[in-house]
Amino acid sequence: MDFTEEAAVTAVKESFAPGTDPRLAELVGGLVDHLHTYVREVRPTVEEWNTAIGFLTAVGQTCSDTRQEFVLLSDVLGVSMLIETINGQETGTESTVLGPFHMTESPRREIGDSIDELTGGRDCVVELRVLGADGTPLPGATVDVWQATAEGFYDVQQPDVQPPGNGRGLFTADDEGRVRFRSVVPSHYPIPTDGPVGELLGALGRHGYRPAHVHVIASAAGHRELTTHLFVADSAYIDSDAVFAVKRSLIVDFEQVDDQAVAARYGIDAPFRLARYDVVLDPAPAQA
Amino acid sequence: MDFTEEAAVTAVKESFAPGTDPRLAELVGGLVDHLHTYVREVRPTVEEWNTAIGFLTAVGQTCSDTRQEFVLLSDVLGVSMLIETINGQETGTESTVLGPFHMTESPRREIGDSIDELTGGRDCVVELRVLGADGTPLPGATVDVWQATAEGFYDVQQPDVQPPGNGRGLFTADDEGRVRFRSVVPSHYPIPTDGPVGELLGALGRHGYRPAHVHVIASAAGHRELTTHLFVADSAYIDSDAVFAVKRSLIVDFEQVDDQAVAARYGIDAPFRLARYDVVLDPAPAQA
Repeated sequence: MDFTEEAAVTAVKESFAPGTDPRLAELVGGLVDHLHTYVREVRPTVEEWNTAIGFLTAVGQTCSDTRQEFVLLSDVLGVSMLIETINGQETGTESTVLGPFHMTESPRREIGDSIDELTGGRDCVVELRVLGADGTPLPGATVDVWQATAEGFYDVQQPDVQPPGNGRGLFTADDEGRVRFRSVVPSHYPIPTDGPVGELLGALGRHGYRPAHVHVIASAAGHRELTTHLFVADSAYIDSDAVFAVKRSLIVDFEQVDDQAVAARYGIDAPFRLARYDVVLDPAPAQA
Repeated sequence: MDFTEEAAVTAVKESFAPGTDPRLAELVGGLVDHLHTYVREVRPTVEEWNTAIGFLTAVGQTCSDTRQEFVLLSDVLGVSMLIETINGQETGTESTVLGPFHMTESPRREIGDSIDELTGGRDCVVELRVLGADGTPLPGATVDVWQATAEGFYDVQQPDVQPPGNGRGLFTADDEGRVRFRSVVPSHYPIPTDGPVGELLGALGRHGYRPAHVHVIASAAGHRELTTHLFVADSAYIDSDAVFAVKRSLIVDFEQVDDQAVAARYGIDAPFRLARYDVVLDPAPAQA
């Protein structure tokens, strides 16, 4: 009843009714605890707090059906990656953020097809193997991929330039757990910086670029679904992703192939870039 | 470059440019530190994090010119009071939250006037003395007061019932630092619970009521301005303010007076309720 800096957290937690869902009490109580510790430590002025309130309000009001500025805020503070990492696989391929562009269904394509409909995919081949934790191939695994163009745009960002589904593909792995597709090497690109999160980045002297990557969601019966990226090893910003999503194990060499005989095996002309990667899935968690 | 739970905070902080304003770096860096510690501790699932993102988005989108749902969220988590307490006076009267209803200018009134225009203020007298830290009266001090009616509504909430400025008054203290006005005893009232913050309170089994109070902003030349409340001692919810704003030193006995001779001295008829309080202001901080 007598508010003090020290007693405040207890007062807030004690206001929760006895029957409150224990997990909700843990999530909100923990937030109150850490938020109060933060405030007691950095001691914001009333004006600074008002600025923070105004910022959060602007973040909420920038959100629309096609834009999620709070996810973007979580991204640039490294929180989205932390959540993803905490909930990632135990031993298989590392996960990374889903990102905001998985908003449309990928068209079903056949192995060897191009996912880039503008160029026909004469620049690049990506070959994946989907494996269980013990290295056994997983035939019939589903692999959903999506990527930006060589100019750094997803189909949904350029409805007048790219046909819907461009840069996307939904594949079924062959008998050896393999998926192969032709494409272009994606470009690095900026996250949206025309909103309050962009202003924050500006004030912190941070750029808003993400290194080039191909998104992958891989799933197979009896296994955990994996959401990850393949990062293009020599991309700009590979050392300073604005959303901190790079893990060393996910950096893939898109090697230059000049050998026409090798190219012929991939149904493409040399020179081209070839990326190969093994995606390893954990077993599905035991049913509760 | 290799994101891990442990390295994440450092990676985010190292993304700030060297020339960044040091206070901004402290405010954002500290937030990242405590937010990551929170996430590593409570380990939210992806689904829980998405729920949190959806909640914050709804809070932002509930804000309008006349409603600030993020301030309300800060209020019900005890953070607004913590900010106010951290920035409060050193030795003078304790401060408490400004609240959302100081949105209109209080009409200037004379000492002894009623601030309640509906009833003429025959129920209650409030008498304040504004003093310096050493107990010296501060003649000419400015006292701005505002309060809800006996039904628990501010003028701005009932434009069809209450004239603008009802329940509000701007006073200048007399030669003894005194301000006196007639009024009604305000009622406890609920904060707005029809938005996402109300949903959160519901999920936590918390009520949304604030105990009865009179808002006060007192200022005087050479002194720090004070924002506080006088809480009505016997009000409902005095032990469980939804925004945690009660401090023991701010609870004031609105004593019942039945003595007609005493009533006459206040220009009112017995019985009535009398609240007396000394407001003590710290000296103004030294100019930087």
